[in-house]
Amino acid sequence: MKIMVINGPNMNMLGIREKNVYGTAGYDQVCAYIKEQGALRGCQVECFQSNSEGAIIDQIHRACFEGYDGIVINPGAYTHYSYAIHDAIKASQLPAVEIHLSNVHAREEFRHRSVTAPACIGQLCGFGAYGYVLAMEALCAHLKEKEQM
Amino acid sequence: MKIMVINGPNMNMLGIREKNVYGTAGYDQVCAYIKEQGALRGCQVECFQSNSEGAIIDQIHRACFEGYDGIVINPGAYTHYSYAIHDAIKASQLPAVEIHLSNVHAREEFRHRSVTAPACIGQLCGFGAYGYVLAMEALCAHLKEKEQM
Amino acid sequence: MKIMVINGPNMNMLGIREKNVYGTAGYDQVCAYIKEQGALRGCQVECFQSNSEGAIIDQIHRACFEGYDGIVINPGAYTHYSYAIHDAIKASQLPAVEIHLSNVHAREEFRHRSVTAPACIGQLCGFGAYGYVLAMEALCAHLKEKEQM
Amino acid sequence: MKIMVINGPNMNMLGIREKNVYGTAGYDQVCAYIKEQGALRGCQVECFQSNSEGAIIDQIHRACFEGYDGIVINPGAYTHYSYAIHDAIKASQLPAVEIHLSNVHAREEFRHRSVTAPACIGQLCGFGAYGYVLAMEALCAHLKEKEQM
Amino acid sequence: MKIMVINGPNMNMLGIREKNVYGTAGYDQVCAYIKEQGALRGCQVECFQSNSEGAIIDQIHRACFEGYDGIVINPGAYTHYSYAIHDAIKASQLPAVEIHLSNVHAREEFRHRSVTAPACIGQLCGFGAYGYVLAMEALCAHLKEKEQM
Amino acid sequence: MKIMVINGPNMNMLGIREKNVYGTAGYDQVCAYIKEQGALRGCQVECFQSNSEGAIIDQIHRACFEGYDGIVINPGAYTHYSYAIHDAIKASQLPAVEIHLSNVHAREEFRHRSVTAPACIGQLCGFGAYGYVLAMEALCAHLKEKEQM
Amino acid sequence: MKIMVINGPNMNMLGIREKNVYGTAGYDQVCAYIKEQGALRGCQVECFQSNSEGAIIDQIHRACFEGYDGIVINPGAYTHYSYAIHDAIKASQLPAVEIHLSNVHAREEFRHRSVTAPACIGQLCGFGAYGYVLAMEALCAHLKEKEQM
Amino acid sequence: MKIMVINGPNMNMLGIREKNVYGTAGYDQVCAYIKEQGALRGCQVECFQSNSEGAIIDQIHRACFEGYDGIVINPGAYTHYSYAIHDAIKASQLPAVEIHLSNVHAREEFRHRSVTAPACIGQLCGFGAYGYVLAMEALCAHLKEKEQM
Amino acid sequence: MKIMVINGPNMNMLGIREKNVYGTAGYDQVCAYIKEQGALRGCQVECFQSNSEGAIIDQIHRACFEGYDGIVINPGAYTHYSYAIHDAIKASQLPAVEIHLSNVHAREEFRHRSVTAPACIGQLCGFGAYGYVLAMEALCAHLKEKEQM
Amino acid sequence: MKIMVINGPNMNMLGIREKNVYGTAGYDQVCAYIKEQGALRGCQVECFQSNSEGAIIDQIHRACFEGYDGIVINPGAYTHYSYAIHDAIKASQLPAVEIHLSNVHAREEFRHRSVTAPACIGQLCGFGAYGYVLAMEALCAHLKEKEQM
Amino acid sequence: MKIMVINGPNMNMLGIREKNVYGTAGYDQVCAYIKEQGALRGCQVECFQSNSEGAIIDQIHRACFEGYDGIVINPGAYTHYSYAIHDAIKASQLPAVEIHLSNVHAREEFRHRSVTAPACIGQLCGFGAYGYVLAMEALCAHLKEKEQM
Amino acid sequence: MKIMVINGPNMNMLGIREKNVYGTAGYDQVCAYIKEQGALRGCQVECFQSNSEGAIIDQIHRACFEGYDGIVINPGAYTHYSYAIHDAIKASQLPAVEIHLSNVHAREEFRHRSVTAPACIGQLCGFGAYGYVLAMEALCAHLKEKEQM
Repeated sequence: MKIMVINGPNMNMLGIREKNVYGTAGYDQVCAYIKEQGALRGCQVECFQSNSEGAIIDQIHRACFEGYDGIVINPGAYTHYSYAIHDAIKASQLPAVEIHLSNVHAREEFRHRSVTAPACIGQLCGFGAYGYVLAMEALCAHLKEKEQM
Repeated sequence: MKIMVINGPNMNMLGIREKNVYGTAGYDQVCAYIKEQGALRGCQVECFQSNSEGAIIDQIHRACFEGYDGIVINPGAYTHYSYAIHDAIKASQLPAVEIHLSNVHAREEFRHRSVTAPACIGQLCGFGAYGYVLAMEALCAHLKEKEQM
Repeated sequence: MKIMVINGPNMNMLGIREKNVYGTAGYDQVCAYIKEQGALRGCQVECFQSNSEGAIIDQIHRACFEGYDGIVINPGAYTHYSYAIHDAIKASQLPAVEIHLSNVHAREEFRHRSVTAPACIGQLCGFGAYGYVLAMEALCAHLKEKEQM
Repeated sequence: MKIMVINGPNMNMLGIREKNVYGTAGYDQVCAYIKEQGALRGCQVECFQSNSEGAIIDQIHRACFEGYDGIVINPGAYTHYSYAIHDAIKASQLPAVEIHLSNVHAREEFRHRSVTAPACIGQLCGFGAYGYVLAMEALCAHLKEKEQM
Repeated sequence: MKIMVINGPNMNMLGIREKNVYGTAGYDQVCAYIKEQGALRGCQVECFQSNSEGAIIDQIHRACFEGYDGIVINPGAYTHYSYAIHDAIKASQLPAVEIHLSNVHAREEFRHRSVTAPACIGQLCGFGAYGYVLAMEALCAHLKEKEQM
Repeated sequence: MKIMVINGPNMNMLGIREKNVYGTAGYDQVCAYIKEQGALRGCQVECFQSNSEGAIIDQIHRACFEGYDGIVINPGAYTHYSYAIHDAIKASQLPAVEIHLSNVHAREEFRHRSVTAPACIGQLCGFGAYGYVLAMEALCAHLKEKEQM
Repeated sequence: MKIMVINGPNMNMLGIREKNVYGTAGYDQVCAYIKEQGALRGCQVECFQSNSEGAIIDQIHRACFEGYDGIVINPGAYTHYSYAIHDAIKASQLPAVEIHLSNVHAREEFRHRSVTAPACIGQLCGFGAYGYVLAMEALCAHLKEKEQM
Repeated sequence: MKIMVINGPNMNMLGIREKNVYGTAGYDQVCAYIKEQGALRGCQVECFQSNSEGAIIDQIHRACFEGYDGIVINPGAYTHYSYAIHDAIKASQLPAVEIHLSNVHAREEFRHRSVTAPACIGQLCGFGAYGYVLAMEALCAHLKEKEQM
Repeated sequence: MKIMVINGPNMNMLGIREKNVYGTAGYDQVCAYIKEQGALRGCQVECFQSNSEGAIIDQIHRACFEGYDGIVINPGAYTHYSYAIHDAIKASQLPAVEIHLSNVHAREEFRHRSVTAPACIGQLCGFGAYGYVLAMEALCAHLKEKEQM
Repeated sequence: MKIMVINGPNMNMLGIREKNVYGTAGYDQVCAYIKEQGALRGCQVECFQSNSEGAIIDQIHRACFEGYDGIVINPGAYTHYSYAIHDAIKASQLPAVEIHLSNVHAREEFRHRSVTAPACIGQLCGFGAYGYVLAMEALCAHLKEKEQM
Repeated sequence: MKIMVINGPNMNMLGIREKNVYGTAGYDQVCAYIKEQGALRGCQVECFQSNSEGAIIDQIHRACFEGYDGIVINPGAYTHYSYAIHDAIKASQLPAVEIHLSNVHAREEFRHRSVTAPACIGQLCGFGAYGYVLAMEALCAHLKEKEQM
Repeated sequence: MKIMVINGPNMNMLGIREKNVYGTAGYDQVCAYIKEQGALRGCQVECFQSNSEGAIIDQIHRACFEGYDGIVINPGAYTHYSYAIHDAIKASQLPAVEIHLSNVHAREEFRHRSVTAPACIGQLCGFGAYGYVLAMEALCAHLKEKEQM
């Protein structure tokens, strides 16, 4: 199973940026952890990060063209206004899971609304880096179920 | 680890109610599945369901008094207006994970807002009954991390 | 034809509560009248009242399990915020008619919005106790029409 | 008893217009049915239809001047913005019942609000052409009750 | 003078729940204090607590039927959405005083709005458990004034 | 000076309609009064009334084509939503004064907003039939001032 | 007849301030004109201006205590937020007419709402300094009518 | 191909009304131009104009009954509130193209919203009288495409 | 204990102003009553009233500089918009209790919101002049409690 | 005449992405078609597509610097929030026509608002790929008209 | 160059009031600093402070009449609702710079909106007392530039 | 002191773009001016401009990694919706000053809200290119003050 993990703006600042909210592990560590955990679950994982909305959309399209089975996406702050990423996920026709490190519902008002989640099969938030593992598990379960139908 | 799984209004209608949205498994099957999966992960799980907001609050309090380690809660439609359940989760001082079977972000406008999630450590939605397993895993990971600190 | 008539919060105060709005007949009188009028139209009617949102949901489910043909429901003030009752009516898959004694459109702003009516086949308001008779007639007409298809 | 039945814009397209929403009976058939059912209940019914807001207001005034006992009105889409029809009903000082063929609460957001209903004694919706019969019954009951006082 | 003191959801968690907001005294202590202070002012006080909206409504009705002179009510989080409790207070025709332990105006936005206060004679908040004493004094003063008229 | 006085929906019901709000004089009496008062001030007045938005627009255009010097308009309930009348007044390029019999600011919320007034030189309300006299005086003053420039 | 004319903030800048909106006549000229026109209509007029909300309220109270028959008030920008002036007019129990030099409906959004007008008998705007004359006429007509009843 | 061109309120004032916004050509000239351009594209065009919402609805129905292939409609200010015209277009089951002379998006806020466009196949604005030609071309293209399916 | 009682706009009209809302006692009587009741509770009370927002702010500052222990404030209509008074209470660093004679929650919408209460320790409303006594009691209780800590 | 056609995010997915909404032709086919149709109308067309907001802005600037006569732009989802593209069109001082393949007014609420259209001369939507041809025609007509002035 | 520095409500509490937000320097110190810094830049500075909206307006007018070259204004909390101060600045026809000590954008929601800034040439916030120096520099630069034109 | 000056979308069009709003100096001139003024104040300034949100975020991160002391940022239209830039400034943990050439408060409604300013120490607007000098001065003052603590 091939999974594309896409991280949005400021995720490259993990371990540097507000540690009380996002934890102390750096972005590379988190990527290594995601790949390792993916491998344990039989998933080949590619990790991509960009601060650019356009580059994220390009990458979602690439996942579609290069035969990925699904997408795990943390759109960062784009979650709250990027209808273009919403459209890109829909256009890719791939199952996607949205993930946020922090519990967005317990933060500023503007973080409560997701314009990208309606294009995904589901969303999870609040579980730190472990959330990526849960997202991969959810994606795999979804793919297996679909296969059986 | 002792986990209290609380299901809100109309969850007892699973397998009967809108099957295209919620799947065909009945409530008892879902409970058995949750307990079995919990046991596999070393968790002792109690499943509770009520259509009454008051009974759900009582049960949250009970989880606090009877030494449960955490709560997995699907507040059903109460998610969208029960500030009383929000307060109950806070009052219990237990870590809680909110879960929804369907992707609430892709349904009616009124289902996009959660007034209970800000009192939880995280929320996940869209993964069907498997979401309870993910919720338990998230809760366990949270508890282990806290233990290590 | 078996019809479940469900009355929500404060309906037990009929004849006591604001008589200028709701009339002088007591709740028991209204129930007797509904049953009598139902019988005249060949309907077996059960009357249920509760101030509890959960108990109303339970009763809607019961109507479904015990083979009632339809529901006449006056959700009282729950009309304006109980998405849980909305979900319960949908889950029951029974045709339901919503009824209000007073013309809710001519009262306080908050009474203009019904979150439960979208789950019903129709709604009527403003006709006092006679509204229950109209609701039963509407329900019967609906059932006969469906039967003929 | 003399009842004025007033139908608003696009009602003349019944049987042609969106049949899945409004049924297959043509406007003339519906009028004949209303008059026949009215006659069975001892009511002399006049049926009026216009697509013009002004003509509907004129007709409401006429009902007042020509000694009608009450009005049954389906203001069509004018329901949602015609404060002028609202004022006309009030000015006529006749009891009026508002009726809609479809369950407006289960359709587009803009159909949930009625600016004309506050000027009526009550409203009903969702019961198709049979709703006119219920409206006449409700009006008659209201008139009889007033007579007895 | 007979006063019914009604406490809403999560009040049973006093002394356990967020002590920085609600203080350290337990619910039983607070009840004892209220009764004692009531007695000093010549009031016979009954204390009732429930997490259930329906049970609170039942209790308000009971106050009406069992000849209580007035109600002191802390509807907890129901304050912000329970139109059913609002209707119950109105239906009981008893003078009621709404009380909140904390200064709700200085907390989350959703706690600023009370849908129950318009059915009461007055409201007070921010004075901790002592607020119940003030509420009883206000109620007594109101009753005496009415008596003299 | 030629002035066109245009009255909107339900103005023909003056003296019949809610007398506590609009007074006891009938529409014809009011017209006679307006013409008489106009004549005293050297104005030739035409009075027009229609319940139809379209007819009112036609009349505004006519005022423009037939060389009237200005318009006094009471758009009735159309005041609150007829952008078409707003556009008609602008299109006519005639100075217009908006008048309401009652103080619209002290009535229902929806009567506080005027979408037609921005197309007029001014507005007045709350002075009963005398308001027409004031409106004509204001119009004359405006025309004289413009003449002098 | 004794009339108190009260002018709010920045009215003292007339003739200096935005002449395209408010005209070229200075404040003193406008006052002289108002008094002269008042005298012609048998009214003794006092003109008061202040930039202070509190001083305006004091003056409204004074009008009440010193036996004025009515008030003509231009609350300037206070029109849009001074509930305190609204309450003062009500407290004075004097008939008041609100006047604005410019057509507030054709200016910025915030000038469309008047919180003071509901406490007056009527409002007029858009007629420049001549508006004060119309306001006095309206006030006199109102007083005469009341006298005759 | 038979096309019904319907023009709403104030369109008859073209060439007279705000020329800076709508250009200098009169309504008759525009009609002649539309018919001529239609003929060049093999379309038989009927031009209709009315200031009356009801008459516009009547005309839309007529287009349906008299076998027109499609509608080009400029609803003028009714665009922004006439749900009745919206319903009429839907009821006619004819493809319609909405057109505005000016770029409504660059004008007042209230002109940004179209309640009629959702019932059309498309909308265009900002191209002056030439917009009617584009609308006819769009309609023809749509009809040809449908024919080919 | 020294308490500063500050009354806002129109409070000087007590006994004159809307007696059905505010009672028949005059402002001086109410002040005498407050001082007397304060003395009975060992409080030295100064009563201040002004219609001016600025003077009220000055007085709040004075309370701070002259060693008062706390403030009882009825900001009248300023309650609903004076962020400046809000800031003044905060700046004074004195405990304050907000009081309203009438139950503001049961009156006009604009009276439901208090922008000053968040700067106070608590608020009470609906108990007439007796409310000042309750406010002083609440303030004393608060001061004693703080002293004991 | 040189026209720059700019396509925004996800337009490269044409023919792949939701075919029921956007048709089956691929992006390259659409470009070829646009160029061919442009050539037939004497226009030299450059087609540009990017998923990046910044790259689209760069291209708009380039159009300005490289002497293009006008812009046809489909900003995709950026239509609904990119004030930066709005500013770029204004900064370029080139006439632009906004085009959407689908009828945005008949889709999700968020697609009804265009923040970029106010910077254009006009907008059209709902006519599929043919819309580009109409947009080029509109642009040419606009340029010719300007030339003649 | 003569500059009028105007400080609004609660600025006299500087050094006393919330020091964590506003710093420890007292109001007199800040004034001395402003004057000194002004002198260094060749500006004669007058410092004025009042808690009264009316007095602030008076002072703005005075700046106009006494030949000041410009205004530096910190309207305190009046920033958020005083349309009267907005009008006063406009009426004075003097260039004004609005300044806030704290970063109002990072504080409560109500502090994000300035109704006075649109009447100024610019605004700055967040730089403490040094902000006054920047404001004077900005004002001087503006005046010099105007002089050169 | 090393300062990173970041300019957002369309700033490269300075001197070309709407000169009445933004002045006649070109972007390169403005950069040279900023650097020169920075040098005079002992600051080493790097000027960066991009139309891409992602590139701006990258540059903010770079400022953090390359040891800049602070940021002066003009996010252009991104100011109003880029929560991603807001997060980037926070993540960089560098003091930032937001600057706008024009007085955004006096322009379109959408320019009144800044989502990026809450992440900065302060904001200034309306002073043209000179605003960059003020921003650098403010930044230096802030850094010196911090150093001294």
